[in-house]
Amino acid sequence: PSSKLPDVGTSIFAVMSALANEHQAINLSQGFPDFNCPDELIALVTRYMQEGFNQYAPMPGMPALRHKISEKTEKVYGYRPDPDQEVTVTSGATEALFAAIAAVVKPGDEVMLLEPCYDSYAPAIRLAGGIPIYVPLAIPDFHIDWDLLKRNISRSTRMIIINTPHNPTGAVMPRSDLQKLASLTDGTDILIMSDEVYEHMVFDGQEHVSALQVEGLRQRAFVISSFGKTYHTTGWKIGYVVAPPALTTELRKMHQFITFCSVTPLQLAIADYMDNEAHYRSLPDFYQAKRDLFCELVKPSRFELIPSAGTYFQLLKYDAISQEHDLDFAKRLTQEIGVASVPVSAFYHNKTDHNYLRFCFAKSEETLRQAAERLVTL
Amino acid sequence: PSSKLPDVGTSIFAVMSALANEHQAINLSQGFPDFNCPDELIALVTRYMQEGFNQYAPMPGMPALRHKISEKTEKVYGYRPDPDQEVTVTSGATEALFAAIAAVVKPGDEVMLLEPCYDSYAPAIRLAGGIPIYVPLAIPDFHIDWDLLKRNISRSTRMIIINTPHNPTGAVMPRSDLQKLASLTDGTDILIMSDEVYEHMVFDGQEHVSALQVEGLRQRAFVISSFGKTYHTTGWKIGYVVAPPALTTELRKMHQFITFCSVTPLQLAIADYMDNEAHYRSLPDFYQAKRDLFCELVKPSRFELIPSAGTYFQLLKYDAISQEHDLDFAKRLTQEIGVASVPVSAFYHNKTDHNYLRFCFAKSEETLRQAAERLVTL
Ligand SMILES: CSCCC(=O)C(=O)O
Ligand SMILES: CSCCC(=O)C(=O)O
Repeated sequence: PSSKLPDVGTSIFAVMSALANEHQAINLSQGFPDFNCPDELIALVTRYMQEGFNQYAPMPGMPALRHKISEKTEKVYGYRPDPDQEVTVTSGATEALFAAIAAVVKPGDEVMLLEPCYDSYAPAIRLAGGIPIYVPLAIPDFHIDWDLLKRNISRSTRMIIINTPHNPTGAVMPRSDLQKLASLTDGTDILIMSDEVYEHMVFDGQEHVSALQVEGLRQRAFVISSFGKTYHTTGWKIGYVVAPPALTTELRKMHQFITFCSVTPLQLAIADYMDNEAHYRSLPDFYQAKRDLFCELVKPSRFELIPSAGTYFQLLKYDAISQEHDLDFAKRLTQEIGVASVPVSAFYHNKTDHNYLRFCFAKSEETLRQAAERLVTL
Repeated sequence: PSSKLPDVGTSIFAVMSALANEHQAINLSQGFPDFNCPDELIALVTRYMQEGFNQYAPMPGMPALRHKISEKTEKVYGYRPDPDQEVTVTSGATEALFAAIAAVVKPGDEVMLLEPCYDSYAPAIRLAGGIPIYVPLAIPDFHIDWDLLKRNISRSTRMIIINTPHNPTGAVMPRSDLQKLASLTDGTDILIMSDEVYEHMVFDGQEHVSALQVEGLRQRAFVISSFGKTYHTTGWKIGYVVAPPALTTELRKMHQFITFCSVTPLQLAIADYMDNEAHYRSLPDFYQAKRDLFCELVKPSRFELIPSAGTYFQLLKYDAISQEHDLDFAKRLTQEIGVASVPVSAFYHNKTDHNYLRFCFAKSEETLRQAAERLVTL
């Protein structure tokens, strides 16, 4: 029998990381830091393992972690989700996205995706029998084209997926857009999935507005975040979902059959470490300094800097250098000058190319300097 | 809109563990040890975290772990899977089962389940649009009724799911059954999923026969195992799948969108610890001693011991004590004498009750003694 996912190849993150290794290139492709997580967090994991916390966590997540998530959500966004009925810990944000879609999308349901967008949404929708409806964000600053979005809403629309701060573009959604989404969906059955994993990386004094802060939106939203981005532990795979009780009930029915639970000692260690508010409060400055350094070093090059207001990604437009398709150009850059990036076309279902490459600046100053030195030679 | 899983409630494992906590009962329900994993394994995790291995693992799993799995598979089962094309690390066996089903089951496909069986198979089949076909194992020793099985095969049969050693019954599938399955599926498109997470817990000098050892079966099988059972780390969520290259390709397409990868420092620590062959070679004796102790202590009671040839579960038949439905009886035992177990009806889609309760004996001698003392009072 034929493949269920005939068009799906190896993910672009795996392709570019592999090419980077092969050519010993500086890897600014896949989004992860090249520095370690806090020592204190590691010490906590060790302590919990030694104390014997190595067996199944409760399916919805360790109570201690759900309570801390609830408290922190109130502190940061002014809304306190019920830890028992509105917070669920998942095996990374990837599982959270997958489980939320699987939980509510039925055969024939349409799910709206704003492109460019992360590559796991559409396959999850298809597995559930749903239909992805692709709506492009407006070039060059990736804002929502409201007329286009409205024209794509139908009686079958079950969900709209948003992502702020936005991967791969670095755009941050203004409160007014979230409010428009609330009005637009008012009185409908349309659900929202809001992917907010870069919530603590917003720059230049702007603030992240969570779907949890918007009346009308919160009541219909799965809000997804991840400790991987915030604590420099992308390899720990602890994410979570905040959603109203009825949605949480459906989400957990899927979660219990997808991974059942997430790693116990990591959950406990993160719960303790969350007391250190200074960590996430310092992240905007920490990453803004990296963005600024990278941009300053790249400025003398022929790349055009597309403003990044959030995430740990910076887009560079290269049409002054080449007219190649961005996948070809990204590969050539890796091979010839030794800097790996991600072509933005990978975030479009039909590989639309606008001559943008995405660079991850969650790297040491030294790494960023070396990469920029190579980029300015073009 | 209505629920996609209207019949799904909280899993029996969560229900019974919660009831056990509420009544401070001895918890022999959910399957996990009450002793810790080896110190050396914890030390390895700590070392890898300190060395900075806290970022995304490659999507198919850390190469070191896939190589060790391949080597061990050859040593134990005489077949060496290609670590790059035939071994995939997953976020526990639960994700492995889910991803394998999602990868190959299409709308309308039938998947045969031999009941009693684990509760995550059917929901995964349904999400993919497939139809679970339930075939009961024969009472009292839970062998396959081949006539019944054959009668349930149709042109739509896409997969047959087997599980040996068998949860919840402790039955171990003889080689002859695996061979019959190979002949039966020869020349068809039917795939096999073989859940072998209790591979190292087989007693009385019997041996576990893996689907990987059976010509004809291996070529059509997803073989699933988990380190959680073998290393006393059910809360670490590291499982894996061995499957032929074409099936592995499809599996990974799903895995990359379900969790993408599993926890990096745990994968590396397990890879190193796998050199300690003595660990898994000693497991049969280790768990047989626990089974024997539990059975000896329970023998004076009015429960009937159903022979357990493998896993860390022991069935007790209680019809000399009560004619209640097993769920009611299990709850009453928890509340009144303080011993929690799992009613076997939970493993049947229609809650068929044969007056069996499942007890987990992966517990310290002290715990087993206390539990048995209470059981003999009935
Ligand atoms: C799960 S690998 C992809 C990491 C990531 O979020 C990205 O690079 O966009
Ligand atoms: C994932 S909780 C269930 C544990 C288990 O395998 C069992 O108790 O049967």
